[in-house]
Amino acid sequence: MASKSKKTTTEAKIKRLRKRLKKARKKVTALKAEMTSSALGATVSPLAPEGGFPSLPEIGGVTFATAEAGVKYKGRRDVMMARVAAGATVAGVFTKSSTRSAPVRDCQAKIAAYGPDDMNAGYAILVNSGNSNAFTGSVGDQAVAVTVDAVAASLGIPSSHVLTASTGVIGEPLPAEKITAVVDQLRDTQSSDSAALAAQAIMTTDTFPKGASAEVSIDGNPVRIAGFAKGSGMIAPDMATMLVFIFTDAKIAQRDLQAALANRNSGTFNAITVDSDTSTSDSLILVATGASGVEIGGPRSASNAAFSEALGQVMLKLAHLVVKDGEGATKFVEVNISGAASDGDARKVAMAIANSPLVKTAIAGEDPNWGRVVMAVGKSGARAERDLLTIRFGDILVAEGGWVSPTYSEEAGAAYMRQQELAISVDLGLGSGKSRVWTCDFTKRYIEINADYRS
Amino acid sequence: MASKSKKTTTEAKIKRLRKRLKKARKKVTALKAEMTSSALGATVSPLAPEGGFPSLPEIGGVTFATAEAGVKYKGRRDVMMARVAAGATVAGVFTKSSTRSAPVRDCQAKIAAYGPDDMNAGYAILVNSGNSNAFTGSVGDQAVAVTVDAVAASLGIPSSHVLTASTGVIGEPLPAEKITAVVDQLRDTQSSDSAALAAQAIMTTDTFPKGASAEVSIDGNPVRIAGFAKGSGMIAPDMATMLVFIFTDAKIAQRDLQAALANRNSGTFNAITVDSDTSTSDSLILVATGASGVEIGGPRSASNAAFSEALGQVMLKLAHLVVKDGEGATKFVEVNISGAASDGDARKVAMAIANSPLVKTAIAGEDPNWGRVVMAVGKSGARAERDLLTIRFGDILVAEGGWVSPTYSEEAGAAYMRQQELAISVDLGLGSGKSRVWTCDFTKRYIEINADYRS
Repeated sequence: MASKSKKTTTEAKIKRLRKRLKKARKKVTALKAEMTSSALGATVSPLAPEGGFPSLPEIGGVTFATAEAGVKYKGRRDVMMARVAAGATVAGVFTKSSTRSAPVRDCQAKIAAYGPDDMNAGYAILVNSGNSNAFTGSVGDQAVAVTVDAVAASLGIPSSHVLTASTGVIGEPLPAEKITAVVDQLRDTQSSDSAALAAQAIMTTDTFPKGASAEVSIDGNPVRIAGFAKGSGMIAPDMATMLVFIFTDAKIAQRDLQAALANRNSGTFNAITVDSDTSTSDSLILVATGASGVEIGGPRSASNAAFSEALGQVMLKLAHLVVKDGEGATKFVEVNISGAASDGDARKVAMAIANSPLVKTAIAGEDPNWGRVVMAVGKSGARAERDLLTIRFGDILVAEGGWVSPTYSEEAGAAYMRQQELAISVDLGLGSGKSRVWTCDFTKRYIEINADYRS
Repeated sequence: MASKSKKTTTEAKIKRLRKRLKKARKKVTALKAEMTSSALGATVSPLAPEGGFPSLPEIGGVTFATAEAGVKYKGRRDVMMARVAAGATVAGVFTKSSTRSAPVRDCQAKIAAYGPDDMNAGYAILVNSGNSNAFTGSVGDQAVAVTVDAVAASLGIPSSHVLTASTGVIGEPLPAEKITAVVDQLRDTQSSDSAALAAQAIMTTDTFPKGASAEVSIDGNPVRIAGFAKGSGMIAPDMATMLVFIFTDAKIAQRDLQAALANRNSGTFNAITVDSDTSTSDSLILVATGASGVEIGGPRSASNAAFSEALGQVMLKLAHLVVKDGEGATKFVEVNISGAASDGDARKVAMAIANSPLVKTAIAGEDPNWGRVVMAVGKSGARAERDLLTIRFGDILVAEGGWVSPTYSEEAGAAYMRQQELAISVDLGLGSGKSRVWTCDFTKRYIEINADYRS
């Protein structure tokens, strides 16, 4: 019996040792992976959606083509052109940067001048990656004019109907001739099902292409909305550093389309931040082709409400994807502020938390360091009173009444922080102001990516 | 025999497993060491001044002592007490955080109430590192009261004359009893020449102690100013995350001392940023002992101007040292803005550049990425016109007239960026507003330090 008991003990010992060995070896693998992933160039973000780029519905009245123009990148498609049939309306929102790029200035002027007559001719949207054509002086403006005119001539549409967007390095002259050289090719290879390729062509430091769609029924008739986006660094309002192109087959007046877009922007693309830096090139262009024949009414109509809601969903999905591809991101973080003296104050607190390097590095380290959340509330400039604050990580009550909650355990906090998607909620206990923004963590990869972007 | 052989096999198996486990664990340790090589506090900042802590002049009327209280750190001095003789005046400026710490609230209330009668009794300043006593609710206030009363009783001075400062982790209760246990020891070991030890005792993630001094002649009589500071993360106005203690033997009214301090703060401690995060504990306390017998007049007197100038020099030196010990810093960067529509606009642009993660990572990568400077100008919210901007790296003209300068070469820019101390200058070409701030680069070390600060 003694032998049996000894055997049992020995077996248990072996079992224990094997378990420990397995654990240690797992740790070795994990650490090695961590080290190589930071040594590697481009790994796909761990926050990328499973299943890859979604299957987007085709939108009547719009087609896409892509080409390898070699603007900066070699051996990849770096230019895309969307062609929109006559009968469409176009809206846009753009960066507020005072040093915004030549294409942004050009688009802003054109869209502001669009009226009912513009429905008589089609549109084109020409986008390149690798060069942002920002801070390139009058040469930059000329590059826009040259590419715009080439597209207009090739497609037989007015130059005022050609919109352009450029993303990439700032301050280098855009080689317009490389783009104009592929315009006819872009015209001749248009297809209605190549949004996925278009989404890839506009990528820069993005690790995956981003697409989203929605369908909404207006009086029993389906309206489709589909879009794609790029952007992974220089992401902050107003707006995030992005290019976004959304297409719908709804029939809607330009004025109402612009209003719907602007209205949904504050809670979506203007509510995300990766690094607090604002691009000179942010552009969000929304095209309504009217191909469904379904008319959307004015701002107070039921059809407008339903359309706007669906549009907002597509915008929010794309905005979240941009954060999930935040440079070096390993965590997706929702910041919820309530009980502020005003919505403006809530926004200040939300952004102070979402942009705080100390909060974001703590999240990267899976450290439930709620003291840094307190710090960020304190520095935000919003009205706040220590003893009225309530802080939650997910559903876990962390702090209230000016101090850590008696029910809070560091173990529970630490376990929560190991999740990939996190929510930090702060109630200020002062009023009814609220705000919700999204951000990611701040990792060594962000530094790696940005310390040698141009080399 | 079978049994024996089995036993041997089992033992051999255990031995093998143990060996493998040991090896795997060794590997974990090695990998971890590699990943955190140059681990916390182990390496001194490459920007630390040569020659180490300066030889500070003794200031008549003030002595220091330090002790190992074990507040958080073991085996190092973590508490310091400065004792100030009767006849002194005391001024202070503090963080504007709405979640500021218990000691900060206590100091602010006390200093605001100081009047001429307060010269009749001495003062004490008690400082601990390792715990900031911030967001610790009423327990935090009690901890301040307990330590203050212990010092007052030990020294025989009013409690209102005991100022405290705490730095370290937020949200953990301050073990006041560990501090009160060493108060008598601190009283009995005071000496006039231990500012260097005091400067060390208040360090947290600092990699070197920071001291500076100046001597100024007022009507032929010397006045000495000496101070020390801590702070390397959570550094941004208002103020940088710091504790600073400056002592002078000048004889100056409390009101004039406070005015001189506040006046010099905006161009020194409020003009530095490491990570845009503002501490809940920033405290700058200035003590004038009067021991020199040299009287400093009101704000418009020549003596006040000379004294303020020297005070400003000490403050600027200390502020620069704080940036040079910025967490992970490898570059010291001066940002000069001129030609802005107003000083306020210039300040906005300066801070937008100094806090931009993209600018700071480019500097870390020695990349003369002036496009990111353009981006930061654009996002600042200040009035700016692309074609009027002039950008310089040191003396190198980089961009003007809305584009890169024809005289600029990328090689010259890259060579410049390899220097340890850099200057980025932007002239907005609009008016006479100007601002100068200091920052450091943003490196992987910052992330390392802050992703596991508490562990």
